[in-house]
Amino acid sequence: MTPTITAFERSPDGGKGLARDMRVRWALEEVGQPYEVRYVSFAAMKQPAHRGRNPFGQIPTYEDGGLVLFESGAIIFHIAGRHAGLLPADADARARAIAWMFAAVSTVEPPILEFASAWLFESPQSWAAERMPMLEERVHVRLRDLSARLGEAEWLDGNFSAGDLMMVHVLQRLAPSGMLAKHPSLAAYVARAEARPAYRRAFAAQYAVNAAA
Amino acid sequence: MTPTITAFERSPDGGKGLARDMRVRWALEEVGQPYEVRYVSFAAMKQPAHRGRNPFGQIPTYEDGGLVLFESGAIIFHIAGRHAGLLPADADARARAIAWMFAAVSTVEPPILEFASAWLFESPQSWAAERMPMLEERVHVRLRDLSARLGEAEWLDGNFSAGDLMMVHVLQRLAPSGMLAKHPSLAAYVARAEARPAYRRAFAAQYAVNAAA
Repeated sequence: MTPTITAFERSPDGGKGLARDMRVRWALEEVGQPYEVRYVSFAAMKQPAHRGRNPFGQIPTYEDGGLVLFESGAIIFHIAGRHAGLLPADADARARAIAWMFAAVSTVEPPILEFASAWLFESPQSWAAERMPMLEERVHVRLRDLSARLGEAEWLDGNFSAGDLMMVHVLQRLAPSGMLAKHPSLAAYVARAEARPAYRRAFAAQYAVNAAA
Repeated sequence: MTPTITAFERSPDGGKGLARDMRVRWALEEVGQPYEVRYVSFAAMKQPAHRGRNPFGQIPTYEDGGLVLFESGAIIFHIAGRHAGLLPADADARARAIAWMFAAVSTVEPPILEFASAWLFESPQSWAAERMPMLEERVHVRLRDLSARLGEAEWLDGNFSAGDLMMVHVLQRLAPSGMLAKHPSLAAYVARAEARPAYRRAFAAQYAVNAAA
């Protein structure tokens, strides 16, 4: 059966691939699983039909037969359990890749989102300029630690995994800020991921929708 | 083999159970798995030995034989894979419980941490009072959605799972703010979890260390 995901009818980023459906599209492309997309408007996302799929009224969601899932991390984990290519077969290596999935959303993404949200929504406020250096430094702390762990390696732990996929997508939100460029090994890590054919197919698919909108 | 976790030598909360080792202790108690604890100071957490366990220099970590893990979500998922009691056996129900684990750290926790961190660290700043209503409302948006989904149910999806465990621990950080009391069904949900014998044993274990420190 072909799974159905949801995505923004019009992504706020205009097709830059920052919306979280991009993670799921990318994972599905990595494993060669075709999928359908149901596009939802901002109004429809907050209606009961969509909240039945995601109680927080967000995208992406995933439906396959009787299963309805939300949270990009959980959806990707589910896909990885059904197809080879996103998580290692060895139990310990698999557990470590899952740790990177959680690290992406729980340790690295929050300060990045706080920084991005302050930049987008609070910049007209009197306090914005005063707070930004603190928010930037919180991001750099994480990037320094991540860069130190990555070292000269291609991916975070052995072969490319769902942990890398999620971490790269989290880091991409920093692109317009120039902050990633201060950590050259991480910028190269993101570039390596963006060169993957599966990434390119997923990016093109969401771009086609949003650039046309 | 008995696994070893790490925890703060002195938790900043003085034993209120808000440090993330509490989640792992609770999960281990739910499944009846004894464990050892290595206590680490703030200085030791940032040294190479601990960064080898967690590249971000945080607690908790988990070691069992040759496996070294970080991220409370990943550790609890690993424990749930080795013992019954934290995730359902049915594949779809298991995927949904994992979605709640990700929702806890990725959707509900970030606005709570942003609120708590502003309260703790930015209150002397000129902008603090002006920003707080916005931060509180971001938390309430999530709590309203979560409360609507929980409805009259005891737990988020069927029996108690690792998704409830993580969600409850995320919500507990709101206790001193009084915000949880505005969502009575969530306050009752947290209270139900806190009444679990496994929760009480885990709480007592971390309290004994931190109240004595």
